[in-house]
Amino acid sequence: MALDDSWFTEVCEECGSSFSLKVTEKLHEEVSDFQKIEIYETSKYGTLMVIDGFIMLSDRDNFLYHEMMTHPALFTHPSPKRVLVIGGGDCGTLKEVLKHSEVKQAQQVEIDERVTRLSEQYFPDLCSSNGDPRAELHFVDGIKWVKDAEPGRYDVIIVDSTDPIGPAEGLFNEAFYRDCHKALGNEGILVQQSESPLYHVKLINDMRNAMRNAGFDDVHTLDFPQPVYPSGWWSATLATKGGNLKSFREQAVRDKPFKTRYYNYAMHKAAMEETPLLAEALE
Amino acid sequence: MALDDSWFTEVCEECGSSFSLKVTEKLHEEVSDFQKIEIYETSKYGTLMVIDGFIMLSDRDNFLYHEMMTHPALFTHPSPKRVLVIGGGDCGTLKEVLKHSEVKQAQQVEIDERVTRLSEQYFPDLCSSNGDPRAELHFVDGIKWVKDAEPGRYDVIIVDSTDPIGPAEGLFNEAFYRDCHKALGNEGILVQQSESPLYHVKLINDMRNAMRNAGFDDVHTLDFPQPVYPSGWWSATLATKGGNLKSFREQAVRDKPFKTRYYNYAMHKAAMEETPLLAEALE
Repeated sequence: MALDDSWFTEVCEECGSSFSLKVTEKLHEEVSDFQKIEIYETSKYGTLMVIDGFIMLSDRDNFLYHEMMTHPALFTHPSPKRVLVIGGGDCGTLKEVLKHSEVKQAQQVEIDERVTRLSEQYFPDLCSSNGDPRAELHFVDGIKWVKDAEPGRYDVIIVDSTDPIGPAEGLFNEAFYRDCHKALGNEGILVQQSESPLYHVKLINDMRNAMRNAGFDDVHTLDFPQPVYPSGWWSATLATKGGNLKSFREQAVRDKPFKTRYYNYAMHKAAMEETPLLAEALE
Repeated sequence: MALDDSWFTEVCEECGSSFSLKVTEKLHEEVSDFQKIEIYETSKYGTLMVIDGFIMLSDRDNFLYHEMMTHPALFTHPSPKRVLVIGGGDCGTLKEVLKHSEVKQAQQVEIDERVTRLSEQYFPDLCSSNGDPRAELHFVDGIKWVKDAEPGRYDVIIVDSTDPIGPAEGLFNEAFYRDCHKALGNEGILVQQSESPLYHVKLINDMRNAMRNAGFDDVHTLDFPQPVYPSGWWSATLATKGGNLKSFREQAVRDKPFKTRYYNYAMHKAAMEETPLLAEALE
């Protein structure tokens, strides 16, 4: 069955799969200094943001990604006071970070201010914590930001970027990870989205090796469902500077005063053991 | 971007989403006594079976579904000797069941013999245990089979069916569950595929209520990624006749002599606690 013009389709030729969402209206389109940004209204997924033809997020399912990019890392760090988000212009990760009362300062460094301005307009819920006094929004190059950071400045760095092509390419290599390592304090944690466990095992392996070569002591990859991304199954990779990725603040998770829709205590326990498919493929 | 004829697309209008696989060849098409069955070769997902326009399984990702339909139930039952699979004509569930050395007899009751014959031809790996002396393949109506079963005949019943329309409709109601309850022994477990946790919460609730009304003492829904099914996120619902779904044979899972690619001990532990999204939506 062919899809007519009422569908937005993201084709992944090298995956041999495509995912489509039924759209009811194109709300916005612009070419920023960095990329083409489109906003759609969909029939069942709420508002949709597309960058350079790739689906970034939808109202309906972004909670999976944002929770899993944030809470495992923040509950693993013994005391996450200073958090840096690289990318993350939709502010959904920032919002999850700010749910942690231990956090004293959360900086979001997004290269493309237009992503955030459009998110404020079209995804107001994700931006609802931007006025938190602990939040700082910067619109500059995250690679340079990390390179220039004072050593030991951060407890957690979250790399919430697009795919490793275009503006985000420089966020997936050893030089960047070395700067992250320097910018993290003792027991600091780096976490980065690491694509599909079904499609991108080589990328995940390369990322993990680059993190280790950059000085990180341990790395760990966890996976979770993500309907709008290729294969509907996604991953995040954590790296630690001298800490332990195999333990977390269990009581704090059990007692967390905020609600989550996917992440919970049992999930975190399970996520500490790599899925067999990944454990076998990873070096 | 429009997809050309080289893609097989399954549209889910009521979900507002579609999933497509790039196909390189149509290997077979027939209309059996029950349904239209198509077999394709895909570019990246291996062989694909489609029934009445709905993707049933691919080589690449069927392990997720088959493992999660089988191992949580079989490791929860204290001693699963006699197992019945209703549907499951591709034989992938049967193959996982037979990995359990405790199983003395595994009956597969598939209404459409053509599904199994085509699976033997196009998915030989899934059918590789069909010659196991403990396996029995029957091609009759599973609803009648269960109704006629001797009380207490089975330890585990696995309902591995298509969606609740067409031939499988009668597998999703209280009368059928009552017959399953009667056919199960003490601590017996029923497990059924229960669609997408993102799309089908009402169906899951209806199923759980019908199971409870049919006499089951406890029900539990677990979820897992499944790229080729709508939303890429799927679920299975378990029901027990007097047993406990919140414990399992932990040492047996740790010591299991066979390999899995998704299911493991940590996963099972996590799966016993419902995902918050579901826990909130379920009655």
